[in-house]
Amino acid sequence: MKELSFFDDEFISTDEKKIDLEDRGYQFGDGIYEVVRIYNGKCFALERHLERYRRSMRELRIPITYMDEELRAIHEDLIKKSKIKNGSIYSQITRGTSPRVHYFPDKVVPHLSMTIRESNIHTDWQENGIHAILTDDLRWLRCDIKTINLLGNVMAKQQAHEKGVQEAILFRKDTNLITEGSSSNFFIVKDDVLWTHPINNYILKGVTRSILLEECAPKLGLTVVEKAFSPQFALSADEMFVTSTSLEVTPIVNLQNQSIGDGNPGKVTRQLLKAYHEIVQKECY
Amino acid sequence: MKELSFFDDEFISTDEKKIDLEDRGYQFGDGIYEVVRIYNGKCFALERHLERYRRSMRELRIPITYMDEELRAIHEDLIKKSKIKNGSIYSQITRGTSPRVHYFPDKVVPHLSMTIRESNIHTDWQENGIHAILTDDLRWLRCDIKTINLLGNVMAKQQAHEKGVQEAILFRKDTNLITEGSSSNFFIVKDDVLWTHPINNYILKGVTRSILLEECAPKLGLTVVEKAFSPQFALSADEMFVTSTSLEVTPIVNLQNQSIGDGNPGKVTRQLLKAYHEIVQKECY
Repeated sequence: MKELSFFDDEFISTDEKKIDLEDRGYQFGDGIYEVVRIYNGKCFALERHLERYRRSMRELRIPITYMDEELRAIHEDLIKKSKIKNGSIYSQITRGTSPRVHYFPDKVVPHLSMTIRESNIHTDWQENGIHAILTDDLRWLRCDIKTINLLGNVMAKQQAHEKGVQEAILFRKDTNLITEGSSSNFFIVKDDVLWTHPINNYILKGVTRSILLEECAPKLGLTVVEKAFSPQFALSADEMFVTSTSLEVTPIVNLQNQSIGDGNPGKVTRQLLKAYHEIVQKECY
Repeated sequence: MKELSFFDDEFISTDEKKIDLEDRGYQFGDGIYEVVRIYNGKCFALERHLERYRRSMRELRIPITYMDEELRAIHEDLIKKSKIKNGSIYSQITRGTSPRVHYFPDKVVPHLSMTIRESNIHTDWQENGIHAILTDDLRWLRCDIKTINLLGNVMAKQQAHEKGVQEAILFRKDTNLITEGSSSNFFIVKDDVLWTHPINNYILKGVTRSILLEECAPKLGLTVVEKAFSPQFALSADEMFVTSTSLEVTPIVNLQNQSIGDGNPGKVTRQLLKAYHEIVQKECY
């Protein structure tokens, strides 16, 4: 099959209606999510995703009622039952259902919903590079938590979509500093140094970002600077790329109508993608 | 009955499960809401709420598929069917259901959900005043849109709840300026002048706020200054109060463990509440 879902304790078809009007996920966006990539019928980097799941829940103080073993097993069952080899599993946990009050209600039980869906990586984007725009980062000041309060990201991505480009790169107007993409982490290469925003409340600690910095960059002997920089500095870079679970490492060859470097995917970017693919290969094939 | 709900085109009981896993309200908080107060079996200030509904939808570019007449009729039907005399009607509209992508999907049809529930105004809070805390305003930079991305509000309200007080007053750390309450607009009275934050992207244009400024304050001959001010300035005020559909005009007698004025609800606050009640009386009784 092309897709299959799970809600609380049962496998369902994705269009089944299972959610209450007063699920706090629906009324407050009071929940968190993860997206895990499936390669060759196997979950990639699942442990890192589960670790972030727990962190997000701790930060929002959603009680942990789904154990790692359980989440791991449902991921595997979704793959087995759907027979999907390449795709992704989206999952979210909300605080639960209760008559609407802003503060955390007593005695609510979290809801888990998951969907596996077949999809391919955009290898054309990886080969040719994508175009992107710059736009204001209007999001809240806890972007380190992977919550379903995603309107800031949605509005930015929609701007990119309407301009016919693939990603929106966000910057904070008050500081003139780039944070990240609307659904990705952002990197530049300048004078052989790899730059990206440091981990704090302004960005999400992406799983692909972590793998790149902890495993791929050291392997290539790259100098890494985790420090915020301006749009102007970024536009002067030799190379530029974004990372995410579904984009892996995708070059940006044009930002805000300006070519980056020589207008082609950069050498370091291609080496990082190759190193990332080697890790995927080792774990899933 | 004590409560009754509506979803898309039918009256349902509130615990019926009607929402898709992939409703964008559930996965992105991609939707808007309103809360209308019911006095004596009648909607109060419904036209102002409908006007704000339309504005919120325009700002998020959710197509308007529910006309004012229709929304008005459903509000009235919920009251009639439930026989509720005093309570509120919560309603929300989300962009619709679609396989998950950040940008606006094509051909999605918005979902409307509504719940009427019996409730009383906290007249004890109005008589004795409430206590509040000050906390960082971490929310996004489009607080003028009444969206269901409410985690910033939820986390602030929870802080107040845990400290045993009724409201959290938010201030922006970078500017040291108070914006509003976690679910209310914020006012002070100092030297007979009524102060409140101006209408811009940092606050919601509350319906009660508008009625107060347009109808009650002029009637009392009050000088009004719509200008942001610091927590320190607020703490030196003679009177302090919050407004919302469910709080009406509720005095704050203690902020961040400091008494405001003489520690009792202020004279101007009481006059404004009285003027507000006269308007309610005229419209609903």
